[in-house]
Amino acid sequence: MEGRRFLRNLFLIFTVVLLAVFTLQRLPSTPSNGADLLDCATNSPWCTFKNRFQAKTNGLLKNPPKSTRRRHDAASDVPRHPLDPLTVQELNKVRDVMKSYPPFTATPYALHYITLDEPEKRVVSGWKTGDPLPTRKASVVARAAGVSHELSVDLETGEVSVLNTGRHSGSPMLTLEDLTTATAAPLANAKFNRTIRERGVDIADLACLPVSSGWYEREMEDKRRLIKIQCYTMKGTANFYMRPIEGLTVLIDLDTKEVIEISDQGKTIPIPNAANTDYRYSAQNEKVKFINPISIEQPMGPSFTVEGHLVKWANWEFHLKPDSRAGVIISRAMVRDPGTGEMRSVMYKGFTSELFVPYMDPTDAWYFKTYMDAGEYGFGLQAMPLDPLNDCPRNAYYMDAVFSAADGTPYVRSNMICVFESYAGDIGWRHSECPITGMDIREARPKVTLVVRMAASVANYDYIVDWEFQTDGLIRIKVGLSGILMVKATPYVNMNQVNQPEDYLYGTLLSENVIGVIHDHYVTFHLDMDMDGANNSFVKVNLQNHRTSPGESPRRSYLKAVRSVAKTEKDAQIKLKLYDPSEFHVINPNKMTRVGNPVGYKIVPAGTAASLLDHDDPPQMRGAFTDNQIWVTPYNRSEQWAGGLYVYQSHGDDTLAVWSERDREIENKDIVLWYTLGFHHIPCQEDFPIMPTVTSSFDLKPVNFFESNPILGIPPNQEKDLPVCKAAASSA
Amino acid sequence: MEGRRFLRNLFLIFTVVLLAVFTLQRLPSTPSNGADLLDCATNSPWCTFKNRFQAKTNGLLKNPPKSTRRRHDAASDVPRHPLDPLTVQELNKVRDVMKSYPPFTATPYALHYITLDEPEKRVVSGWKTGDPLPTRKASVVARAAGVSHELSVDLETGEVSVLNTGRHSGSPMLTLEDLTTATAAPLANAKFNRTIRERGVDIADLACLPVSSGWYEREMEDKRRLIKIQCYTMKGTANFYMRPIEGLTVLIDLDTKEVIEISDQGKTIPIPNAANTDYRYSAQNEKVKFINPISIEQPMGPSFTVEGHLVKWANWEFHLKPDSRAGVIISRAMVRDPGTGEMRSVMYKGFTSELFVPYMDPTDAWYFKTYMDAGEYGFGLQAMPLDPLNDCPRNAYYMDAVFSAADGTPYVRSNMICVFESYAGDIGWRHSECPITGMDIREARPKVTLVVRMAASVANYDYIVDWEFQTDGLIRIKVGLSGILMVKATPYVNMNQVNQPEDYLYGTLLSENVIGVIHDHYVTFHLDMDMDGANNSFVKVNLQNHRTSPGESPRRSYLKAVRSVAKTEKDAQIKLKLYDPSEFHVINPNKMTRVGNPVGYKIVPAGTAASLLDHDDPPQMRGAFTDNQIWVTPYNRSEQWAGGLYVYQSHGDDTLAVWSERDREIENKDIVLWYTLGFHHIPCQEDFPIMPTVTSSFDLKPVNFFESNPILGIPPNQEKDLPVCKAAASSA
Repeated sequence: MEGRRFLRNLFLIFTVVLLAVFTLQRLPSTPSNGADLLDCATNSPWCTFKNRFQAKTNGLLKNPPKSTRRRHDAASDVPRHPLDPLTVQELNKVRDVMKSYPPFTATPYALHYITLDEPEKRVVSGWKTGDPLPTRKASVVARAAGVSHELSVDLETGEVSVLNTGRHSGSPMLTLEDLTTATAAPLANAKFNRTIRERGVDIADLACLPVSSGWYEREMEDKRRLIKIQCYTMKGTANFYMRPIEGLTVLIDLDTKEVIEISDQGKTIPIPNAANTDYRYSAQNEKVKFINPISIEQPMGPSFTVEGHLVKWANWEFHLKPDSRAGVIISRAMVRDPGTGEMRSVMYKGFTSELFVPYMDPTDAWYFKTYMDAGEYGFGLQAMPLDPLNDCPRNAYYMDAVFSAADGTPYVRSNMICVFESYAGDIGWRHSECPITGMDIREARPKVTLVVRMAASVANYDYIVDWEFQTDGLIRIKVGLSGILMVKATPYVNMNQVNQPEDYLYGTLLSENVIGVIHDHYVTFHLDMDMDGANNSFVKVNLQNHRTSPGESPRRSYLKAVRSVAKTEKDAQIKLKLYDPSEFHVINPNKMTRVGNPVGYKIVPAGTAASLLDHDDPPQMRGAFTDNQIWVTPYNRSEQWAGGLYVYQSHGDDTLAVWSERDREIENKDIVLWYTLGFHHIPCQEDFPIMPTVTSSFDLKPVNFFESNPILGIPPNQEKDLPVCKAAASSA
Repeated sequence: MEGRRFLRNLFLIFTVVLLAVFTLQRLPSTPSNGADLLDCATNSPWCTFKNRFQAKTNGLLKNPPKSTRRRHDAASDVPRHPLDPLTVQELNKVRDVMKSYPPFTATPYALHYITLDEPEKRVVSGWKTGDPLPTRKASVVARAAGVSHELSVDLETGEVSVLNTGRHSGSPMLTLEDLTTATAAPLANAKFNRTIRERGVDIADLACLPVSSGWYEREMEDKRRLIKIQCYTMKGTANFYMRPIEGLTVLIDLDTKEVIEISDQGKTIPIPNAANTDYRYSAQNEKVKFINPISIEQPMGPSFTVEGHLVKWANWEFHLKPDSRAGVIISRAMVRDPGTGEMRSVMYKGFTSELFVPYMDPTDAWYFKTYMDAGEYGFGLQAMPLDPLNDCPRNAYYMDAVFSAADGTPYVRSNMICVFESYAGDIGWRHSECPITGMDIREARPKVTLVVRMAASVANYDYIVDWEFQTDGLIRIKVGLSGILMVKATPYVNMNQVNQPEDYLYGTLLSENVIGVIHDHYVTFHLDMDMDGANNSFVKVNLQNHRTSPGESPRRSYLKAVRSVAKTEKDAQIKLKLYDPSEFHVINPNKMTRVGNPVGYKIVPAGTAASLLDHDDPPQMRGAFTDNQIWVTPYNRSEQWAGGLYVYQSHGDDTLAVWSERDREIENKDIVLWYTLGFHHIPCQEDFPIMPTVTSSFDLKPVNFFESNPILGIPPNQEKDLPVCKAAASSA
């Protein structure tokens, strides 16, 4: 019996290797259409071996509904705008150049991050439609022989410039190949096989996840890339996340695939049951349909256009592109001034710079779970195709991404981003005259917005990131959390077995033998605001209680707005305080409204959370960009990633917090605003086996940017303009 | 010339008096249909004299679009549920009983607040459809000869019980008659007429507002009801609010209509221009239509029903009614347990208890502006008919209110509340498997919610209050602010004329001669939570930084959830702290989930603001219910209004803060949760001449209330279920 298992495992490993070789060979150098491109599924041993769950949903994706509008074919795309992402052809060129790049001809190498090396801001800002494109360049982060290389490849000449090279405290974003080969690595280890067997798990049911191991000031962490593998059983459920093999952690060298250490502490902890864990519709016994079909309908079609990567809607225009690390990048967001008709710059570039997700369990199998999902796993790389009609409404436009394998071969991630108009029945502005005046005035305007959405599935968790544009100039950036909890197995089946507070669980008992461990989520946004030009200032408008002088007024106190301009970075390290409130404006001190207010936008936090870990705790040193909710830095081409470019196992020596400590001047400069949206998550039973979406957001809101309400002239809805609908054929 | 003006004014006053007499006489005692009912418009001298703005919108209301579904006729309504509001017939009965109520036969009196005297909670909870209704009673707050009477009228027997009578520090909610006669009162004063004339304003263009005068520890405020009148010119705009006659304040005795004092300080301040202030669509020169028609469509109709006042939708059921003071009252909110199928109690009663809106200007014409809109003006009384298609989407159901005039005569406020299903394209829950696992799973469910909405126009400001029910059990309570700013005239036309910080403006220069004065908004909600029964506890789950012991873990810190049950009211006086975060649960300590967690809901604050006025400042003494964001009190029938029943000119001696100081026991008791949602508002030019809606909200969210995710079984959208639409005829 053991022999058979061993043979099967050997076969599995052999197949992985074969597949990898095969995959590398079959990559076309100049693919002419999408069909020739590497499909991500071929990168994962799981799709190959464990395809039991594929059939049902595959059909949906292969035959997208008619309304799934695709307006461009990623495989044959050509760049049309200076900020357009690298095309298939350009990525092939990068791959070819890298193959013959002298340091790489002699050593195995991997390309961890390939993205457009964007032209200088002034070049992009000066570019007009019809102008020739500035030189196209690729920015490449590669790794060879333990050394990280930051390169720029001229796509015309093939010339390679070295921006930075050498050993850093951290290493580049993992490739998908890193992740998939790491999860297969323990299979070759006999001790691992033995413990899996002893726990009663069939290797064929095994599902293992690669967990970034962080950095804990230990020597063994130096000079090599490590990852921890933790496993689950898929038996009886697609939701293997609910069936952890608790306490078993395999430490792997990512480069050699060597098993360094197996920690095996939870043998007496049962694997939780499969019952009631599967969330797929096909697996439900209790299907409930209590809502009639409902749809956002636009009889004359949507009001936005997407030309290449340029989105135009209502009074907005912006450039939109996918990025394997950041997910979605919004550039050159401009809004039309209703007075002058001119398109005015609001934001040069906005994107998710980093995430930080520390779990609150210091025990052996959990302490290291302090994810930095963008810099470690690639926030865009994990953004899977959106499900039409369910992830986005009917009239959505879908944009594909082109990413690349570790050797540089491009592949298409279809439907990675959707763009749609939303109308929830909300009110843009309104006024009725009240019974006091008796004037019969009733004016209301419906609120319609444009949403840009992606959803990254970083293993268990799903992050839904929305950029929502409003006609009144407001941009709402919204993060939704759904997907599946990272849970811990426990012998407890009922809280009455737990002696509190001694037997602290680090979370909530969600079901028999299942604990949802407490954790935080921080999502840090890079917001390069350019209010009518690059030179801006950051202004704090503090509301201060002001005591009246005796006899001045029957009032004893009132709030006074006290403005102060941040001179240097430290003036703009902001912790939000309910009892010491401020507004935070980015203004252009060189441009005034008609009545003399500087034009600007304010950042408006909503519900959020602050990291409370100790500053000397290694995870917090690496996640120090969460030390404040708001930061402002002078624009610096190299300061894009709040946790540092090389965040994997980094020591926190290249974070936003480190940059900001330089205390550079930020008044009337090209400045970048950073905001961290936070969530504390104490799981509850409703999160089992899959979480209803929890959402929070913040706003970028015009403040004296316009001379007056910019949507005074929009019309009310009228019955005659609305569609005439009938139920679909199926319901007739 | 002066003689003519005087004569005209005399005529105006005469007409007001005549109209009042006429109005009182024509009230039918048993109206048989809506047409006989008093229309609020006849209560306002403005509708009569200044009807220039009526024609255009009137048409819309008289001919509501076909899709405006009305399912019951308020005029012929009969009560069907113990909590149903008083009907026209019942209100007529109250009026008749009051006419012959001995103390009132001898003195003039006014009925300030008439509402259902709700049966005891246990009676209501025990009642089942088909049971006879418990005795119907009306709760009446009346005032006669300077004395407030709190009465209960048995609607069968006509018997009157006195609940409370006597002099209080405050007085009842103003009647519409109080407000409209007060605004007319200054017209009889020669000094007032002279200063209006001297400022170049034609009396025919005059618009005056009744501003509650608050209480400032002055003797002259004792024993009489005072109000301050401030005026505007309507010349050239429907938006007279933007044309203040600055510095002119007339103090009126509300009972005698006597002018007590005229403060006239702003003669040199110009009245701002009318240009660009009118917000009505008909007045726009620059009409912009950049969005194609968009609509929420439900080809098989909405999924909710309204039977009388009982709303049923998806897994929810609740009782909904209008109230002249609270606006909307939600009662007996119950959600279906997906496991047992049983309807489980979540909230016995929820409503807007009070508002507090202090302005931040201590000068003569502004210091007193510290509105308490529910208890002073009637939040429901000011909620005007919603505009179909613009205030609510196409398939909304509209509910009318029946309110009463000061003498008790009922009238119908049509379309006061709307109920509709909303779908914004959002996601209820989702999970994709990521490229790491390669499993081809993509499951997402659209998020559809049910919204109950009203919009109160308290003079200039519009408050949109939404109760949004989600299928996952969450209730979101959302407050939107729109409408028109309360502005101050100033000689300044540009900020370059202002020496800062010496010339502090108390706000923002919005346009030439117009300052938007800084103010706060606090909206306090009464939330009588009944988690599966009345006896509940309030639990604080505090997240505390916990330092690990040396050697315990590579981690130095983590967050620990520490639960504490509030024993008495003072344990539950909560100020939110970003750096000392907690979850706040209302649980039923007597009911556990399968794995032993107490069932409960948590209150989840989002963006909010705290009042920073000094505690000894009279406005804050009256608004002391905003001293904390959260309070919990034991249920007490008489503690409904956070600022006190008699809030007008009150001294703050009957607020939530006073009740809570009694520090009663609240563990395992019938408890009421109070939450205050706050906004600081520093106006900006975009708020001129009408504000784009600003929204904030908080959630009531199940936390171990269900055994697991209650919407696991809902289906994904499928193309075949969605409607087939074509553009409307008008666009063909």
